Amino acid sequence: MIDDPMKVFAGSGSRQLTARICAYLGLPMGKNETLHFSDGNTFVRILENVRGRRVYLVQSTIFPANDNFMELLFWIDAFRRSGVDSVTVVIPYFSYAKGDKKDEPRVSIRARVCADAIEVAGADRIVMMDLHAPQIQGFFHRPVDNLYALPLLCNRIKKLNLENIVVVSPDAGFAKQARRYASCLQAPMAIADKERSGHDEKASILQLIGDVRGKTAVIVDDFTISGGTLAAVAQELVAHGAVAVYAAVTHGVLTPGSIERIDASPIQRLFITDTVENQPVTFSQKIEVVSVASLFAEAMRRIHYRESISEMFRY
Amino acid sequence: MIDDPMKVFAGSGSRQLTARICAYLGLPMGKNETLHFSDGNTFVRILENVRGRRVYLVQSTIFPANDNFMELLFWIDAFRRSGVDSVTVVIPYFSYAKGDKKDEPRVSIRARVCADAIEVAGADRIVMMDLHAPQIQGFFHRPVDNLYALPLLCNRIKKLNLENIVVVSPDAGFAKQARRYASCLQAPMAIADKERSGHDEKASILQLIGDVRGKTAVIVDDFTISGGTLAAVAQELVAHGAVAVYAAVTHGVLTPGSIERIDASPIQRLFITDTVENQPVTFSQKIEVVSVASLFAEAMRRIHYRESISEMFRY
Amino acid sequence: MIDDPMKVFAGSGSRQLTARICAYLGLPMGKNETLHFSDGNTFVRILENVRGRRVYLVQSTIFPANDNFMELLFWIDAFRRSGVDSVTVVIPYFSYAKGDKKDEPRVSIRARVCADAIEVAGADRIVMMDLHAPQIQGFFHRPVDNLYALPLLCNRIKKLNLENIVVVSPDAGFAKQARRYASCLQAPMAIADKERSGHDEKASILQLIGDVRGKTAVIVDDFTISGGTLAAVAQELVAHGAVAVYAAVTHGVLTPGSIERIDASPIQRLFITDTVENQPVTFSQKIEVVSVASLFAEAMRRIHYRESISEMFRY
Amino acid sequence: MIDDPMKVFAGSGSRQLTARICAYLGLPMGKNETLHFSDGNTFVRILENVRGRRVYLVQSTIFPANDNFMELLFWIDAFRRSGVDSVTVVIPYFSYAKGDKKDEPRVSIRARVCADAIEVAGADRIVMMDLHAPQIQGFFHRPVDNLYALPLLCNRIKKLNLENIVVVSPDAGFAKQARRYASCLQAPMAIADKERSGHDEKASILQLIGDVRGKTAVIVDDFTISGGTLAAVAQELVAHGAVAVYAAVTHGVLTPGSIERIDASPIQRLFITDTVENQPVTFSQKIEVVSVASLFAEAMRRIHYRESISEMFRY
Amino acid sequence: MIDDPMKVFAGSGSRQLTARICAYLGLPMGKNETLHFSDGNTFVRILENVRGRRVYLVQSTIFPANDNFMELLFWIDAFRRSGVDSVTVVIPYFSYAKGDKKDEPRVSIRARVCADAIEVAGADRIVMMDLHAPQIQGFFHRPVDNLYALPLLCNRIKKLNLENIVVVSPDAGFAKQARRYASCLQAPMAIADKERSGHDEKASILQLIGDVRGKTAVIVDDFTISGGTLAAVAQELVAHGAVAVYAAVTHGVLTPGSIERIDASPIQRLFITDTVENQPVTFSQKIEVVSVASLFAEAMRRIHYRESISEMFRY
Amino acid sequence: MIDDPMKVFAGSGSRQLTARICAYLGLPMGKNETLHFSDGNTFVRILENVRGRRVYLVQSTIFPANDNFMELLFWIDAFRRSGVDSVTVVIPYFSYAKGDKKDEPRVSIRARVCADAIEVAGADRIVMMDLHAPQIQGFFHRPVDNLYALPLLCNRIKKLNLENIVVVSPDAGFAKQARRYASCLQAPMAIADKERSGHDEKASILQLIGDVRGKTAVIVDDFTISGGTLAAVAQELVAHGAVAVYAAVTHGVLTPGSIERIDASPIQRLFITDTVENQPVTFSQKIEVVSVASLFAEAMRRIHYRESISEMFRY
Repeated sequence: MIDDPMKVFAGSGSRQLTARICAYLGLPMGKNETLHFSDGNTFVRILENVRGRRVYLVQSTIFPANDNFMELLFWIDAFRRSGVDSVTVVIPYFSYAKGDKKDEPRVSIRARVCADAIEVAGADRIVMMDLHAPQIQGFFHRPVDNLYALPLLCNRIKKLNLENIVVVSPDAGFAKQARRYASCLQAPMAIADKERSGHDEKASILQLIGDVRGKTAVIVDDFTISGGTLAAVAQELVAHGAVAVYAAVTHGVLTPGSIERIDASPIQRLFITDTVENQPVTFSQKIEVVSVASLFAEAMRRIHYRESISEMFRY
Repeated sequence: MIDDPMKVFAGSGSRQLTARICAYLGLPMGKNETLHFSDGNTFVRILENVRGRRVYLVQSTIFPANDNFMELLFWIDAFRRSGVDSVTVVIPYFSYAKGDKKDEPRVSIRARVCADAIEVAGADRIVMMDLHAPQIQGFFHRPVDNLYALPLLCNRIKKLNLENIVVVSPDAGFAKQARRYASCLQAPMAIADKERSGHDEKASILQLIGDVRGKTAVIVDDFTISGGTLAAVAQELVAHGAVAVYAAVTHGVLTPGSIERIDASPIQRLFITDTVENQPVTFSQKIEVVSVASLFAEAMRRIHYRESISEMFRY
Repeated sequence: MIDDPMKVFAGSGSRQLTARICAYLGLPMGKNETLHFSDGNTFVRILENVRGRRVYLVQSTIFPANDNFMELLFWIDAFRRSGVDSVTVVIPYFSYAKGDKKDEPRVSIRARVCADAIEVAGADRIVMMDLHAPQIQGFFHRPVDNLYALPLLCNRIKKLNLENIVVVSPDAGFAKQARRYASCLQAPMAIADKERSGHDEKASILQLIGDVRGKTAVIVDDFTISGGTLAAVAQELVAHGAVAVYAAVTHGVLTPGSIERIDASPIQRLFITDTVENQPVTFSQKIEVVSVASLFAEAMRRIHYRESISEMFRY
Repeated sequence: MIDDPMKVFAGSGSRQLTARICAYLGLPMGKNETLHFSDGNTFVRILENVRGRRVYLVQSTIFPANDNFMELLFWIDAFRRSGVDSVTVVIPYFSYAKGDKKDEPRVSIRARVCADAIEVAGADRIVMMDLHAPQIQGFFHRPVDNLYALPLLCNRIKKLNLENIVVVSPDAGFAKQARRYASCLQAPMAIADKERSGHDEKASILQLIGDVRGKTAVIVDDFTISGGTLAAVAQELVAHGAVAVYAAVTHGVLTPGSIERIDASPIQRLFITDTVENQPVTFSQKIEVVSVASLFAEAMRRIHYRESISEMFRY
Repeated sequence: MIDDPMKVFAGSGSRQLTARICAYLGLPMGKNETLHFSDGNTFVRILENVRGRRVYLVQSTIFPANDNFMELLFWIDAFRRSGVDSVTVVIPYFSYAKGDKKDEPRVSIRARVCADAIEVAGADRIVMMDLHAPQIQGFFHRPVDNLYALPLLCNRIKKLNLENIVVVSPDAGFAKQARRYASCLQAPMAIADKERSGHDEKASILQLIGDVRGKTAVIVDDFTISGGTLAAVAQELVAHGAVAVYAAVTHGVLTPGSIERIDASPIQRLFITDTVENQPVTFSQKIEVVSVASLFAEAMRRIHYRESISEMFRY
Repeated sequence: MIDDPMKVFAGSGSRQLTARICAYLGLPMGKNETLHFSDGNTFVRILENVRGRRVYLVQSTIFPANDNFMELLFWIDAFRRSGVDSVTVVIPYFSYAKGDKKDEPRVSIRARVCADAIEVAGADRIVMMDLHAPQIQGFFHRPVDNLYALPLLCNRIKKLNLENIVVVSPDAGFAKQARRYASCLQAPMAIADKERSGHDEKASILQLIGDVRGKTAVIVDDFTISGGTLAAVAQELVAHGAVAVYAAVTHGVLTPGSIERIDASPIQRLFITDTVENQPVTFSQKIEVVSVASLFAEAMRRIHYRESISEMFRY
């Protein structure tokens, strides 16, 4: 073990997060480079000897989604063909996690397609965070560790010293997860029951279940893309008498228009993490990034030194 | 057989070519749609019943390269999960064909990564054109038909009624293929021996082997990306006394700057095919597209009706 | 096609359902037999020539769960080794569908283990009903058709001519599906938010969301095992002023004690289907079985004759 | 190596044997638990951190056969998904070993189905004992170690200080193995040539080859299920003049009626091992269990510390 | 079916047998060729269009064993890559069938290695004859049909009008098969119990069980290599009073010295079949070849037209 | 690592080379044996405990090609089933490397067939030398290290103290590699452009490009089989005024007639390496063998101790 320190490499989608992870671990970042050719092809090259090593590659598959996914596959293959002992793939944000079912006829289960491509390329172990559906672990044959941003996000919220909190799930599907936030924040819960219509990413609020009047609402969710749902739920909360609205979302996939939408909403502050970087927008002051680097670093360290990850989430 | 007509679908990268193929075959194009979400994710949906059918999907993986490749995987999966009998994947231009070897330490063999992803997604048969290296067929376990644009490009050149032609291979690696053009055009051959240095796509001409003085040179190649090699070889040909220069290239991957480079070169006319579409440039009058739709259509028809494809290329 | 009529075989777990399916299709049941040895081993034998045929095997993996699952694997292998053209596996009730995630440390994702075993044994296509989580389709690489008992159960309820109905989801997780029942029955919806504690199958009601006072409640669910949740929700409904309680559940896994629990509850009638048979209990008059044989028969016919299954569920 | 002591876990089918193995190795048994739900489903949970460890799971797939087999698959998956370095599966008695051929039309080769399921679940190495046919090792792609109970059973018999022994093979198929017992006991051999008719487990003695008159017969076999063959052979031996009859059988699969059959037979003592436990019968005084825990423990130790297993059986 | 006649091709190891099979079926032999280069490499080429066809390749893997095995793999791949619908591999004699177990430490299970190579190359179905151990079917995942030469060999023997026959199994392992011959010839059986020592192919007779005095012995076996066992058993039979000795063996692998050994033995006539051809010896008059072409032809016809093969062996 | 020294074994095709490798490494050769039976079957046996070890097997698949390839597969399987930790397969000469494409209709891509067989047998890593096409690395999924004989061959040539050297590539395909020799020897280059016609191994020289008059020509190539091309190119060189001709070829596959052909040619000395041994000819004095044992030994050592191989070829 003494001869086998961790080797952590970054893909294009997670260079900043990886730098923070390496700082936490007291390790230099692995040397590698990615080239993007004028025809759109991606090329990767490892710049140091990795033979016989257990390597860790960090790559969120977003911004840009498909380029980063293909790069991920090429990294895995490059490591395999360089004779590594194992490749642990850390995917802080896996953009196709939402494509996890055949909810209409003749579509692809894209998350399984991606899982198969990752496994056939040669990944040995996968680490993710706040998977949209826990069943996605079953799309992989190899072991998947699913981490939770919850402790870090709750800690940040606790520092706000808010009073009379109500935790709000923005839809029925997230209610189970929201209850864990409510439990951690020792607060009651309310649920917004929305229904997405088709693939146009626009949500229509149906109803608000639970009491929010006179309370400080904290909307929690696993990811936001357009910011539209968050803004709509926030407005509904104010309409039902909430005195203040905060939001905490693990994956902040902020696309053009998101910032304006959030700035225009009653949300006072939106906490996101650094699982997603390279967003094609400039953040406003309402948005605050909570780093999950320490969580990933600790999980990777425990994997490397054979310790339990589940113990990290006993709270 | 009577109950089993062909079903041909287009991916985003080959909608125009597929329309031409379907016109040639007298078939309506299969109904399907691709959505591109604001976060960069790709979504595909088949809009008609395909259960038990043998389907053909046409998709060049370029412009954009990685998006179209991922879309290809999702189409294969969507067809599989819709209960088709077989999926024949037609990839007129396979952008990662160049990533076919480990010619420096610690890189990925990207063409094999792509081949594995295509096969694990469920493709039954692959049809390509003018593969960069014939060995790529061996990257697939499933049967691959490699078509040649040569007969169509030669026919076009013959119509120019050029005299005193010399066929020019732009590098030693393409010499074997160039000789087939020379033989078809009943012309002698010359070779430009260039050497690429690294990954910067800039080629440096070393020497010109063979006699071109007083002749009309026809440069032939499998693909061009920046147009830089073509322009440089053309200039070298003129410097060695060629009286006119034409070029015929199967895959025209024209990126910003290519058109200017070709316009500024001594090349009178550049023939490319429609294996690549959606180029992010406006073609100048020097560039003429020769459609290979009839070739693909005929190959697909022969696959469907169990006829020989090799007989198409006996000339 | 004329020479290739369907061949439908029953496993031990679905002999009655298969008989009804064959009656609907006007086909004789395939001849086969299962032996159960004194040491607990299972042996299967096909008693007619199936070479080159597309066969359909119907087998619910329950009563007994593991014996029937192993029998399923042996049937697939026996068909494969007998030279069939394809094996479509119809699993009306897949008992391990609930084991679809790693919701606590160091457990197995049992549904994926089962999916892998089914696929490696050689199944070509899978047909199921009302899967606990739609993501389970992604556990299979082969196409999975997921049917819905909803139209048949709703038809049965409509015949009761109940007035002032409210559809009740027994937990938050089923809310999305319950809304489809509500929509079909043109009724409002209420949700019981329960929380299971551990693996002891005992649920504890937390709260009832939505208005049920003065209404006839129809609890809907995908499956019931102990009948405990149904009874508890029914009692809560009455406590909140419901004037009558009915229940409609696709998979009726009735174990010792279930009947007593339901008989003692305020539920007037419980509708289940015949996806599960061989229950080790005697049904009381409160329980009515609605056969889904016609649905499976129609789906199998459509698969065989290459028609769309999704069209069956447009309502 | 110092940091990597063995981790041995028991499945439901071999808790007693595993306890003996751990005692021999001076190790605590790994902490885990199996739950059997009222619907017949099986659930497994590992109760300690096993990340990066090389684990050993002991599970005979009998009593009950299919439940224990499914449990075995779930254990393998649970260990894999918990990040172990390797899983060595010890199957002291593999009940489907007899289903090793397609000896009649349209049956399954059940042992191969089981081997495939075990391997796809993720087992790295398999240890078994006295396989019915040595070819079963070839059903697995992974390495299989086949141990022999012979040295322990012979030692026990030698302690009886019997004189004028003849070793008897109960059928032609076991003759080759019986000769090894004869050689170890330095005794001559006789063969009972029986023929099983169909699947009803009833054997009909055809003839007795070799001389047993005045001798103490020791019937040896790999397994007994009903005890019927043993009793019948014993009776035949007495009829041919044997003065006493003993029996030594590796796998004692004693089902209801077995004990009575053996008690009523001329067999004075039947030695079996503890590869099978949880027999649904109460043993009579004629039956004596010889533990093979030391053999399995030694083999596992040798696997763990990279020593040869074949050297264990040089005698 | 009308449009899909059989296509039968021969490999180098079975050209004569295939010619007889095609004559029986009234089909022309498929056009193909094998080249053997001076460096020992093998090259195969199919000389007619086979796209979409169900092809049958006949190739015994003997004389020379490894060359013919490699050729078999190349044929399968060549057919696959030529777009056939399926490849049925007919291996009349599979030389590595004997390498079916790990009967000593650290050896390969060669039959499984060969089975894996055949399956990964792309074979869909395998037809063999008189497999050394029926378990070998389980080494393949794909369906294997095992044919029996017994009816043809017994018919030939019956035509000799021998009286007072005793069927002799040359070792205990073949006793079960020998009894089927005895039953077909309505004769009693005797067994020679030999023991092979190591790998030197020399067998040492131990004893002769059963009465042969005054009888015409017919030794039956699945294969003979050196002819040594046959000669030795024949001598033993004469020593025990047999009045005449015949032998019938499915696979006649006659190597240098075999003919002399048989000619010098008391065997009057040795019947072998044409599963093996190209023997490197000249047959003497004692050896008579019984063709099994009709059996293979009939089995292949039944596979093609979806009829039962097991019905061929009901006698 | 201290407890895990290398274990190097030889196959029949590379016993001499392996002995040299082991001498270089200061290791005893692993104990094993290969038996060749009279029927042409191959049998392998490992004669020492290898459990848990990382083993290295050296086997050129030539002389005889197919026998040595099959032996290679059996070794891999034997090691796997003996519980090794990993098997690194060193194939100094891979005879099917030339069968790397489908350059005519309906042939097999034999190198891929071999790669699949090697991987399915269980090889973990492959080491080769001077692969005919670098794309062959992509035929394997496992990592392949491709070594170059260039430094050793150039060193040998430098010791000749030749003056006025020109490096000659015997065909266009090898030009790129030949330039590396030219660069190492600081000499200019010439190219012979030949065209092989069909499979008859006879090459016809077309032209000689570049200036050789008055120079000492050194023909370089990856392999020679008949020696025919070398002799013809040498003659052409002399005809064009070369004053002396030497040749350096990595793989010397010398078949009957080769020696005579080379002796009769103007070649003064032919350097080959010991990647090929057991040639069925007696070498003349013109032929000198340069051992590459040190190169393989160093590469294997670096693999074992996790060092970079690419650093070996920085010159």
